[in-house]
Amino acid sequence: MKVGNKHYRSIWLEDEGHKVAVIDQTLLPFRFEIRQLTSSDEAVAAIRDMVVRGAPLIGATASCGLMLATLQDPSDTYLKQAAEQLLVARPTAVNLRWALDRMLPELLTANESDRFATARHLAQSICDEDVHINSTLGDHGLGVFQDILKTRPDSQVLNVLTHCNAGWLATVDWGTALAPIFKGHDQGMNIHVWVDETRPRNQGASLTAWELQAHGIPHTVIADNAGGHLMQHQQVDVCIVGSDRTTRSGDVCNKIGTYLKALAAHDNGVPFYAALPSSTIDWTIRDGLVEIPIESRPGTEVTHITGVDRDDQLTRVRLTPEGSPAANPAFDVTPRHYVSGIITERGVSSASEKALLELYPEHADS
Amino acid sequence: MKVGNKHYRSIWLEDEGHKVAVIDQTLLPFRFEIRQLTSSDEAVAAIRDMVVRGAPLIGATASCGLMLATLQDPSDTYLKQAAEQLLVARPTAVNLRWALDRMLPELLTANESDRFATARHLAQSICDEDVHINSTLGDHGLGVFQDILKTRPDSQVLNVLTHCNAGWLATVDWGTALAPIFKGHDQGMNIHVWVDETRPRNQGASLTAWELQAHGIPHTVIADNAGGHLMQHQQVDVCIVGSDRTTRSGDVCNKIGTYLKALAAHDNGVPFYAALPSSTIDWTIRDGLVEIPIESRPGTEVTHITGVDRDDQLTRVRLTPEGSPAANPAFDVTPRHYVSGIITERGVSSASEKALLELYPEHADS
Repeated sequence: MKVGNKHYRSIWLEDEGHKVAVIDQTLLPFRFEIRQLTSSDEAVAAIRDMVVRGAPLIGATASCGLMLATLQDPSDTYLKQAAEQLLVARPTAVNLRWALDRMLPELLTANESDRFATARHLAQSICDEDVHINSTLGDHGLGVFQDILKTRPDSQVLNVLTHCNAGWLATVDWGTALAPIFKGHDQGMNIHVWVDETRPRNQGASLTAWELQAHGIPHTVIADNAGGHLMQHQQVDVCIVGSDRTTRSGDVCNKIGTYLKALAAHDNGVPFYAALPSSTIDWTIRDGLVEIPIESRPGTEVTHITGVDRDDQLTRVRLTPEGSPAANPAFDVTPRHYVSGIITERGVSSASEKALLELYPEHADS
Repeated sequence: MKVGNKHYRSIWLEDEGHKVAVIDQTLLPFRFEIRQLTSSDEAVAAIRDMVVRGAPLIGATASCGLMLATLQDPSDTYLKQAAEQLLVARPTAVNLRWALDRMLPELLTANESDRFATARHLAQSICDEDVHINSTLGDHGLGVFQDILKTRPDSQVLNVLTHCNAGWLATVDWGTALAPIFKGHDQGMNIHVWVDETRPRNQGASLTAWELQAHGIPHTVIADNAGGHLMQHQQVDVCIVGSDRTTRSGDVCNKIGTYLKALAAHDNGVPFYAALPSSTIDWTIRDGLVEIPIESRPGTEVTHITGVDRDDQLTRVRLTPEGSPAANPAFDVTPRHYVSGIITERGVSSASEKALLELYPEHADS
């Protein structure tokens, strides 16, 4: 997507694959800086230190890291070791293992002299496929927006509310929940986005707001508390969020606070959609509330926050009384009956096992 | 309530009414400092600069300010002028006008030589009455807590969730929503409080957490996003909030985000109570969503936040991309059908006009 007038992906190959460029997301929304990775160790550090984040982008970065490893030393021993180090950089990221499992066996069967070329092809493919999936998903989401607009011909603008960051920075390009917003805006649809700040890590106020501003899409940042009030007063036409894990029955696990917005949407007749690549669907589970463990993150993410001070210096401040403890569940589960639909790269489905299996029949027996 | 081992009110007379002491709430939760007011001008400044805040405390401070004015110059001209200046210090605070309307006519009918004594008596009465009302309200709320505990005899602890600050700092003592929590804790009830941080102004993370910590009550600060997840997982036994304005039909206007917690409580069978002095009930309106105007506050309260840096210095930081706009509705309305009950100084009522009028029959014809 665009930053100013220039198109960017969140990761790309430079110098014919001898270098990899990424946007340093630890500095956003305050600084836009490109970082070059020239070794698999640097890719490990970029993943571990959250220079890159978002499951699809982490997978893409790992694939590029393994490509860089083939330049340093294409031996079996070195590549296996590099893959192991990449894998433990963010142990819970499933796309990381998926990308490495896809690349490593193929590399090990190639001649050592061909391994860089093979790795470059695979890494580029993994990046391109992510872009294609999100673009397709975005087209389906745009159809949803167009259908909503048809029901209100007098509407001058489509007001979309989103929570957290499911934008292009979390993927290689387009994003998931934001993909139909970028598509609609680029095609001339009049879209305005309510951006939940998404405490405690503020991915909305920092990353989503930055993406929309950089691409020139009208948006307004709001406290997470405000969305219900806006829906009560017909200020929201549709909610759209991403997902970290969705059950085969359509329960949607996403950033903490998503459930509260789904409740408000339901109470006010506002459609509530989750947009996700089908790789996010966990076909092994049905009951999201019971079967999805929720990560409990450090309380310091609640008690402290980082911004820029009046001298534009990054500064971390404490918000709470010294000694007051904090709890920090990172995700919640929105039960399927509050989800109007699930938008995937194969189309839009209602949030039910039956409907999801109509799009993905290969999982009927799993 | 207690700060360490010492009992405090949020305002009190010193030196037989020649001085007034208040806690400087602009410095909480980072510094606990007492400020002395010695003139009505200083009382105006304390109200205007939010050294004191919370409708009941603002009213009490105005009454003390008028008392200080009688020491400076007990003439009709001066007292009328002082009252006018106090009134405009926070124009929307209804208790401010109420306190002045109660004091000024009585002062003007007294001999000038008696005016200070009269003012001291009235100011002290206004403070004491506020304490009495909140204490009584707290007793009724404690009864609600005891009834909830009876239904779960195996429960080791009562988990209460509250939003914003409806504690003793907003009143003269006890507070409203926090009054039954203080009462229960003081009587040996095992209470733990989930404290919504209450973005954007963080009254929960700063004032409520500070009150509970100072009084020694177990509590945990959470992002406003977390409450729904906690309720889904049976971590909340009851929600209790204050109110800025409640309709005669039981619609509850309170800090932005209250409505989202009421929805989650309803969805998970968690009782949801509003605790408020009857002076908060607006007997002239029935439809809270239509008839209560919602204050729109500056977007900078969303885009910027103040905390203490590593050197313990108060520091304000920006959280959002430069130029991203923010919206900041300050309150929302929770429709009566999501409110389990309304706790007032005359007892507990269901959230309906019929039930409220049974407690307050004098308003039947209004």
